[in-house]
Amino acid sequence: MGVARWEPNTRERLIEAALDLFTEKGYDATTVTEIAERAGVTKMTFFRHFPDKREVLFAAGQEIHGRILADAVAAAPDPATPLQAVAAAVDALAATFTNDRRPFAARLRTVVAAQRELQERAASKHNGLVEATTEALVKRGVPELTASLAAELGLRAFDRAFAQWASPASTQPLTTLTRQSFDELRAASAALA
Amino acid sequence: MGVARWEPNTRERLIEAALDLFTEKGYDATTVTEIAERAGVTKMTFFRHFPDKREVLFAAGQEIHGRILADAVAAAPDPATPLQAVAAAVDALAATFTNDRRPFAARLRTVVAAQRELQERAASKHNGLVEATTEALVKRGVPELTASLAAELGLRAFDRAFAQWASPASTQPLTTLTRQSFDELRAASAALA
Repeated sequence: MGVARWEPNTRERLIEAALDLFTEKGYDATTVTEIAERAGVTKMTFFRHFPDKREVLFAAGQEIHGRILADAVAAAPDPATPLQAVAAAVDALAATFTNDRRPFAARLRTVVAAQRELQERAASKHNGLVEATTEALVKRGVPELTASLAAELGLRAFDRAFAQWASPASTQPLTTLTRQSFDELRAASAALA
Repeated sequence: MGVARWEPNTRERLIEAALDLFTEKGYDATTVTEIAERAGVTKMTFFRHFPDKREVLFAAGQEIHGRILADAVAAAPDPATPLQAVAAAVDALAATFTNDRRPFAARLRTVVAAQRELQERAASKHNGLVEATTEALVKRGVPELTASLAAELGLRAFDRAFAQWASPASTQPLTTLTRQSFDELRAASAALA
């Protein structure tokens, strides 16, 4: 413990330890104490980073991804349409998932799929990211309703692409898959009207 | 207890009792035992109806509303477009909320807004209803992507209308509000393309 306490990347190690344990023994059977032990830190350190075991897999991502999306929407050139700004945002988010992160994503997907509590948290993260993107669009002068639909479309495209990317058969980068998925959803949305 | 056990509408009384207690003392401070007592039934009876206190406010609605939406989509006339079928479905759902249910809806909204756990459950109910509607559209031959976007648009319209309807200032029926909201969202969606 003495040394571990001073190691960097505590947050990352807690996330890795949690995913390991959820995979090995299941989400329900895993305790915060075990996650902390596996990461080589105290339970108190765990609670300095996360409020509970469910948040370990989502809290960091929600905050960081929300910021990436909002920043990219804000940085889109002035004449960009809402959908163009959203396309740039999900592209920026997809670019942070380099191929070395695929095995982690695949394991995360398996764990989340097995647990209703985690599926609900994932849905709540999706909604949080839609909200962050919507707010950034509204700041650009996009009407709220249009903004929320554009944001929903973009995050749906990202979620679909992420599921493909995390499957063992996938070989393409997440950015390519996200652009394809975005184009498909845009076409489906146009066909609705 | 002897008599209460045989009374009808146990489910409805448990829902009423839960909402009363959540309003009076807050969601966290309320126990299943208290909800059962207030409804005049045993804890065991509670658990025959709901797995936990969170589900009391959602389980019944999710099941019934999902069925109403799916049935209405299936019953839409053959030449109906996906958006027309969804409009008929949310219309059918809105019609079940007669004005005498508004005070209940208003209290429900207040309780849910105060509790993150309940907000997540509400979001998960939204997703469940989108899924039920999507499946019914797919059975009509609508492509999955188009179906899911049409369903999302319809349930968003319903959620927005429901929030307006449950506010004290509102006087219009939920069906009227839902149709207005649906038209606004459809226009915003068309403007995106």
